[in-house]
Amino acid sequence: MIQPSMPADFLPFAHRLAECSGVILKRFGHGVRGFESKSDSSPVTAIDREVEAALRAAIAAEYPDHGILGEEFEPSNLDNEWVWVLDPIDGTKQFIAGIPLYGTLIALARNGFPVLGIIDHPATGERWSAAEGTPALCNGRAVTTRARRSLPGSLMFTTSPEPFDDDERRAVSALRSEAAWCVYGAGCYGYARLASGQLDIGVEAGHDPFDYCALAPIIRAAGGVISDWEGRPLGLTSGQRFVASATPELHEEVLATLARELVSRPESVLR
Amino acid sequence: MIQPSMPADFLPFAHRLAECSGVILKRFGHGVRGFESKSDSSPVTAIDREVEAALRAAIAAEYPDHGILGEEFEPSNLDNEWVWVLDPIDGTKQFIAGIPLYGTLIALARNGFPVLGIIDHPATGERWSAAEGTPALCNGRAVTTRARRSLPGSLMFTTSPEPFDDDERRAVSALRSEAAWCVYGAGCYGYARLASGQLDIGVEAGHDPFDYCALAPIIRAAGGVISDWEGRPLGLTSGQRFVASATPELHEEVLATLARELVSRPESVLR
Repeated sequence: MIQPSMPADFLPFAHRLAECSGVILKRFGHGVRGFESKSDSSPVTAIDREVEAALRAAIAAEYPDHGILGEEFEPSNLDNEWVWVLDPIDGTKQFIAGIPLYGTLIALARNGFPVLGIIDHPATGERWSAAEGTPALCNGRAVTTRARRSLPGSLMFTTSPEPFDDDERRAVSALRSEAAWCVYGAGCYGYARLASGQLDIGVEAGHDPFDYCALAPIIRAAGGVISDWEGRPLGLTSGQRFVASATPELHEEVLATLARELVSRPESVLR
Repeated sequence: MIQPSMPADFLPFAHRLAECSGVILKRFGHGVRGFESKSDSSPVTAIDREVEAALRAAIAAEYPDHGILGEEFEPSNLDNEWVWVLDPIDGTKQFIAGIPLYGTLIALARNGFPVLGIIDHPATGERWSAAEGTPALCNGRAVTTRARRSLPGSLMFTTSPEPFDDDERRAVSALRSEAAWCVYGAGCYGYARLASGQLDIGVEAGHDPFDYCALAPIIRAAGGVISDWEGRPLGLTSGQRFVASATPELHEEVLATLARELVSRPESVLR
């Protein structure tokens, strides 16, 4: 068997993975009922694990030597050239509440950096995808970011104010004060909408590689930029902060604004 | 012509209003493109006005003496026994960004207090409705709130942290510290999901009667409670804060928690 060698060669298989996770998540329809306080997270953890186990089995069958980094199980083969990065349910709270913005994130990293991404939203029936060298697609149609090149009046989003520490909150507030407005709670759906040209800036802290690796190839292929808050490319060993912008010019202004507030405390890459 | 005299008599007409607004909003599909910074709000204002004008025309044709309170035009006939309360697009930012959580809110108030409500979500194809004396329905099926009776471990939501002043933020943080988690940005969709038993507590400040009047009959008919932060029923002359809970017992605990933090500054009803 001839092994694929270009990131785009893996796109058909990545779409099959998203079909697989979508089938499982759709079984639960609009939200998950019956949580009680002491076990609020456990039923979702079970679904999370079921989805990730199914994706891992499919990857192991097709590419047994590839690495896998997922939210629910121990990482494997991380020293392989190719590593799959999986978040079975991004937006667990939304999934529990029946808010249709949760999604499955699937990325393929090559030598530590994502080169293929899928953002699959089973509840809205939308799937964004891209690989290095391909356009970004939503349900097969090419998408591009907006042309906004400067911060004033931009449309901003972040998932939650809660993960920000005081320094980070001050930095995000500096962006917010220039933006037209900030919408909360969009999660991975916001980054998909940024790729589709409807939002300009997404900013987060307190996240893991499986939260952002799938976003990066899509944002870049759509014309945007995504990096950590210091401007470094996102990869398997990045820190917890990331930010995406619709254009390179806007991203430069965003990074400069964040840096002004964080001058005393840039994030080191720990891993 | 015999005039309807029970709130439920107006439900078929209220559903026709929601059909009308849904047709207009669906024309714009997934989001509105092409905003520029200096006029980011104006295209949406035009759609808002188009929807509200259509609803007002329908009301004027059917019930010419009824009052109307809407977001976009001057109120009329507010001294009538019956007043329609209209928010053509609740979740304008989400509408612009193509995030499918925006909705049209339609309420009918009798002698100043809402007795019929519709929450219509054209992007998800879901419509919640209720009137005094009827069950709460989502697309024709009865919905009920969850049975959660105390704050610890409850599932909480709020639209945005931005409208809260320091006192309000401290009060909401006191709720948050007891809750399992808080999801942001759900807007009116969150209150619909609370009525459907998937979220426990929604809390807001900085809102207007057309933002909450439609929610009240639905939350109540589903078994929940909604009031201002002092426990007063919501009406045309309420203040800007409101809070909804899945059960009366939970609501009592929520109000007591908010009151502890706001002891020096309850909200007066200004209008």
